[in-house]
Amino acid sequence: MATFVPATDRRVRSPHLPFGDRRETPYYGMDILSVLQFRREDLEYIFGVAKEMRSMVERVGTFDLLKGKILANLFYEPSTRTSSSFLAAMERMGGSVIPINEVTYSSVAKGESLPDTIRTLQAYADVIVLRHPEVGSAQLAAQYASKPIINAGDGVGEHPTQALLDLFTIEEELGRVDGLTVTMLGDLKYGRTVHSLARLLASFEVRINYVSPEILPMPEEVVGELEHRGIPQARAASLEAVLPETDVLYVTRVQKERFQDLEQYEQVKGAYVITPETLRRAKDEMIVMHPFPRVGEISTEVDADPRAAYFRQMEYGLYVRMALLAMVLGKA
Amino acid sequence: MATFVPATDRRVRSPHLPFGDRRETPYYGMDILSVLQFRREDLEYIFGVAKEMRSMVERVGTFDLLKGKILANLFYEPSTRTSSSFLAAMERMGGSVIPINEVTYSSVAKGESLPDTIRTLQAYADVIVLRHPEVGSAQLAAQYASKPIINAGDGVGEHPTQALLDLFTIEEELGRVDGLTVTMLGDLKYGRTVHSLARLLASFEVRINYVSPEILPMPEEVVGELEHRGIPQARAASLEAVLPETDVLYVTRVQKERFQDLEQYEQVKGAYVITPETLRRAKDEMIVMHPFPRVGEISTEVDADPRAAYFRQMEYGLYVRMALLAMVLGKA
Amino acid sequence: MATFVPATDRRVRSPHLPFGDRRETPYYGMDILSVLQFRREDLEYIFGVAKEMRSMVERVGTFDLLKGKILANLFYEPSTRTSSSFLAAMERMGGSVIPINEVTYSSVAKGESLPDTIRTLQAYADVIVLRHPEVGSAQLAAQYASKPIINAGDGVGEHPTQALLDLFTIEEELGRVDGLTVTMLGDLKYGRTVHSLARLLASFEVRINYVSPEILPMPEEVVGELEHRGIPQARAASLEAVLPETDVLYVTRVQKERFQDLEQYEQVKGAYVITPETLRRAKDEMIVMHPFPRVGEISTEVDADPRAAYFRQMEYGLYVRMALLAMVLGKA
Repeated sequence: MATFVPATDRRVRSPHLPFGDRRETPYYGMDILSVLQFRREDLEYIFGVAKEMRSMVERVGTFDLLKGKILANLFYEPSTRTSSSFLAAMERMGGSVIPINEVTYSSVAKGESLPDTIRTLQAYADVIVLRHPEVGSAQLAAQYASKPIINAGDGVGEHPTQALLDLFTIEEELGRVDGLTVTMLGDLKYGRTVHSLARLLASFEVRINYVSPEILPMPEEVVGELEHRGIPQARAASLEAVLPETDVLYVTRVQKERFQDLEQYEQVKGAYVITPETLRRAKDEMIVMHPFPRVGEISTEVDADPRAAYFRQMEYGLYVRMALLAMVLGKA
Repeated sequence: MATFVPATDRRVRSPHLPFGDRRETPYYGMDILSVLQFRREDLEYIFGVAKEMRSMVERVGTFDLLKGKILANLFYEPSTRTSSSFLAAMERMGGSVIPINEVTYSSVAKGESLPDTIRTLQAYADVIVLRHPEVGSAQLAAQYASKPIINAGDGVGEHPTQALLDLFTIEEELGRVDGLTVTMLGDLKYGRTVHSLARLLASFEVRINYVSPEILPMPEEVVGELEHRGIPQARAASLEAVLPETDVLYVTRVQKERFQDLEQYEQVKGAYVITPETLRRAKDEMIVMHPFPRVGEISTEVDADPRAAYFRQMEYGLYVRMALLAMVLGKA
Repeated sequence: MATFVPATDRRVRSPHLPFGDRRETPYYGMDILSVLQFRREDLEYIFGVAKEMRSMVERVGTFDLLKGKILANLFYEPSTRTSSSFLAAMERMGGSVIPINEVTYSSVAKGESLPDTIRTLQAYADVIVLRHPEVGSAQLAAQYASKPIINAGDGVGEHPTQALLDLFTIEEELGRVDGLTVTMLGDLKYGRTVHSLARLLASFEVRINYVSPEILPMPEEVVGELEHRGIPQARAASLEAVLPETDVLYVTRVQKERFQDLEQYEQVKGAYVITPETLRRAKDEMIVMHPFPRVGEISTEVDADPRAAYFRQMEYGLYVRMALLAMVLGKA
């Protein structure tokens, strides 16, 4: 579990390689490691920058805000979606990317430690995005790095930029977060994204419902945290019971690879499928979200429903990642 | 088989994300899916733009025509040559690329459908180049995409940009296409490139000879189409018989992977090899082409012969792909 | 073994595709194949350009010296460090890159020869960086290429840019090369980097000590060459004996994959480990270098020692590769 890193506690960066500006902006040089580092005012700041990014992309497509900046996109695990999103974010702001996807058969496979790899890459890049299968790896990387580290998923640990884009999707689609009822559906035990999103939602006035197979509940640790922060939470036996009051239905995939016992997987995998029929009992003004990829959890017949927000969610991801990159590079 | 998509029938793109200009140019927003979508005037238009691209590259190397545009280069099958060519085409015009080569071990491998992947990538990119092992996949992608799709090969289906560069090579090397005799040699059954080239040639006044092993003839479907369009075609028992009248000798590789029976492969693979001796009976003003890679079909001793056009063919490929990208992005 | 290519003997490039300037600069169009092609004045010229690159990067981060130039980064063997370094070098000077890392499952795997691949890529790129497992492959590539080839390692052959960055590290860290005592430690038989560095050092007035397991000595061929050039060399039984006089301690990894007999590997691998204790007997003004990755040859406790130059070495690699790219592209 990544340690809490308060937003005000960002390290002073080495004066050694002063790439680009050093304007003192509030997030300049900061690592993005965990959702726990964001207070409500941080989230609102990020929303503001992401909205600007959206507006810029819609008006001019690309612009040169990060011209001359280089991102090392270091993926120890494949994730086309996330790596492409960061790549596009950098390119839309005129920056460059060192894509490192083939880590399994590279020098790292020769036994190099993560800190050594990080200290090599920061000789070439201005910011490092890291996806790694081990919990705590982003935190470890940040300890050794003099350049900002952005956690793009550390195993079952955190994936803060996913949670931020989920939250931004809610904000943009429904115009607010306060006052909403969010229902999380599917694998809530292993689903990293719902843990992180729940923690971010705790900074707002929301109600959360959990609908999951019995063996895949939201972990007590998360439930306890949110309880402590005064968030009303409820476990529902079925989606049916809570759908009519739901503003945000967050569907997650039941990942085969999380199961020891494949028979168990076969039992639960089909149990939480969203169809047009399901949505008939939902509000007119609600949204369906999914972190993607989906493999049948949401019927493709739902895609045409205006409440299906999951493709727009990708696009919000671009804006949020643009915002974060610009912020930690001192340009927003 | 990809459905016919007339050039005049291009979809109106969603006004949602107006990246860059919207000048109404004739191919703006169009998909490039099949050679069947190009009439003679389309081909001549493409030639014109490709000639301009050649001239620009020769004079200035690169230029900023597509600055700020992003290409998602989505390759489900490896193809260094084609992916590098599109990448270079984009970079020579100042654009950026999201290279996605490692599809086999990415989210797609987790079972994501092609339409979902396409709808994700179009949130990040302005145009998508797709290479996929299944026939019809480019067509499928285009149905779901709001951004232009360029088919870079869909299995044994189509590879239209290869056919266009082949045709452009003939035009540039010999100054015209009308009036020429084209001889196609080798595996004409599984050779996707010769099917597509034959279809494009049907828009011109050409004669075509087919020289192939008996088990690997040009498919009746293609022969019938060309017959219907009035193209004189002949099957020749040997290259010897037709070489003296040949203006374009198009050599194809006998691909091992196309054979069920490896013994059959061993029998035919050496039967169609071009050497300096072969070319002694050819015209002085003719060209030898090959889609590459070659694995012995053309002896390296032929490389120094000025009639060997296959390396220049790569370069024409750059210009044609630059032209197509600029056209579908509304910049040519 | 790559043939000697004198710096004055560079090929006249084809006038065919005049990408960019043709200002006659001394290294314009040259291949970088072997350390043997560099005389002392060449090395000093490279140092001068690399120092300028360092100063530019420190002041402005990136600049547009190679805007519009395209590098094909062709890696037949994975090497994240080297490929990232060339990529960053190109991007810091505003150039673009065609990254080709997945050679094993690309057209090359279909049996294409290196000369054919090179002649394809030079239709798209202005310079080619090549990493290949076979000795002599860079030399072979250069014979067929009309664009400059930079050897990024050809098997147990050469890795000249590594040797150049090693030398530049010494120059930058200690202010000179003449008069220094360099001790090479570890696997000196298979360690390509120490062979090349030794050859470069022979252009300066240095003393060299070799400390290696008995079965892994510096090859007679290299020792003979340096003897012929008047370089004092000594084999030492232990590091202890020579450390007090050492200005540069160059540590190499004992690579498991070089050993036929794994038992032999287990015996030697731990024998040459640098710890803070080791360095207690070293000069105050000396440096510890390592080509990386390390897997225990240098204790991480040494990292905080100011004499540990190995992370700074990566950064010098960036400047040297920027210098070489700019030089062969006629821009320095």
